[in-house]
Amino acid sequence: MDRAPPPASPAGLSAYVAVSQLLGLTLLATTGAWLGRYRGGVAWHSPLQFNVHPLCMVLGMVFLQGDALLVYRVFRHEAKRSTKVLHALLHGLALVIALVGIVAVFESHRTKGIPDMYSLHSWCGMAAFVLYLLQWLLGCGFFLLPSASSSLRGRYKPQHVFFGITLFALSIATCLLGITEMLLFNIKDSYRHFVPEGVLANTLGVLLLAFGLVVGYVLTRDDWKRPPLPEELALSMDFKTLTEGESPDGGSQ
Amino acid sequence: MDRAPPPASPAGLSAYVAVSQLLGLTLLATTGAWLGRYRGGVAWHSPLQFNVHPLCMVLGMVFLQGDALLVYRVFRHEAKRSTKVLHALLHGLALVIALVGIVAVFESHRTKGIPDMYSLHSWCGMAAFVLYLLQWLLGCGFFLLPSASSSLRGRYKPQHVFFGITLFALSIATCLLGITEMLLFNIKDSYRHFVPEGVLANTLGVLLLAFGLVVGYVLTRDDWKRPPLPEELALSMDFKTLTEGESPDGGSQ
Repeated sequence: MDRAPPPASPAGLSAYVAVSQLLGLTLLATTGAWLGRYRGGVAWHSPLQFNVHPLCMVLGMVFLQGDALLVYRVFRHEAKRSTKVLHALLHGLALVIALVGIVAVFESHRTKGIPDMYSLHSWCGMAAFVLYLLQWLLGCGFFLLPSASSSLRGRYKPQHVFFGITLFALSIATCLLGITEMLLFNIKDSYRHFVPEGVLANTLGVLLLAFGLVVGYVLTRDDWKRPPLPEELALSMDFKTLTEGESPDGGSQ
Repeated sequence: MDRAPPPASPAGLSAYVAVSQLLGLTLLATTGAWLGRYRGGVAWHSPLQFNVHPLCMVLGMVFLQGDALLVYRVFRHEAKRSTKVLHALLHGLALVIALVGIVAVFESHRTKGIPDMYSLHSWCGMAAFVLYLLQWLLGCGFFLLPSASSSLRGRYKPQHVFFGITLFALSIATCLLGITEMLLFNIKDSYRHFVPEGVLANTLGVLLLAFGLVVGYVLTRDDWKRPPLPEELALSMDFKTLTEGESPDGGSQ
């Protein structure tokens, strides 16, 4: 039984993950369509620099952040260390892309003489970005560096998971605020007449919520959590034996 | 040992619940202050009818919905049936107050000739309200009426919990969208100059997020979940004995 094939993924998980990826790609395409069709497209050194902001934030703070959260459910039979590194890399990539998006809006504001950080969207967005960076640094410190003890990791993990999902939700809420701001700044008077740009941007909001809903469902379903691999169980049992003097085959009831 | 006093609540739970209530009352006061100080106050048959909307939505869809979610953590040693009834009553009250808030905005739009349901805020809000009503009806059907079997309740409960927290998060996000809309409709040009109304309304947004954060933390902390009472454990064991022929003192390992 030593070399038995890994157990199959739970029923339904693959379908939900597939739907999440379809939603993720659709929301990226919808963002591109909105910016390309109605906002003149995207460019760095031009009046279109602002448009880099929504594109980067949707890609980094929503799609990549969501996918980084999903890796423990998708790669459930890989070595934990590899999955952990992938989790950190995806979040790191999300942070870099989000930083580009933030620089874009600050530079665009400076060029146009618009003050920064006055709106609720900017307050939420800056809080989400700074806390996300902090969460990433803490995650690397606790789970990737060898310095943190096993018990410290165990105590921090529930906080890491809770704040991970919360920051993902805050990122989506901030995108919805950004959509509303862009519409009210650009098409305030025609928005109420259901013009195509308004309907498209509202639909992007609904897609963002749907992506968040599916990712959140996959993450929080108890029976879809990543099961420990046999070697991780053995390691944890060895550790218990060493630290508590328990027999490896004895339970802790 | 039959009449032993109920165990104390877990350390920290009471403090977190107290902070949530303080935040809840502060956000209601801040909403009142915004509407009273900067928006002319609240009245039904007048041009101020619109202002009934934010007040009712914050009270119903945020404060009361949040408190309804908390009852299983707060009344953890009361009979489950009583806690369940309180949970349903608080959600029911939240729904009625939210309905008043929705009628207010539709009537106000009609009076002023403004179209309904064109904005992302209205799409999210209507989805949140309709799904919240559906969730309430399903909850009553599954958990309060005697018709649903125990196994059916067990299968539905994780969905009820997931969608409960999700709808609470959606309600808060919708309030943030509403705040942004109100500010951009009323003080668009001065908002960027950090006028007091803008800062106050942004602060209300931050308070809404903080309330959601604390309630969400209390709800999702594993060791703060309501433990079954001794009589519920005995009943569940009797049920197992009847249905599975297990001995009441035997485990299911």
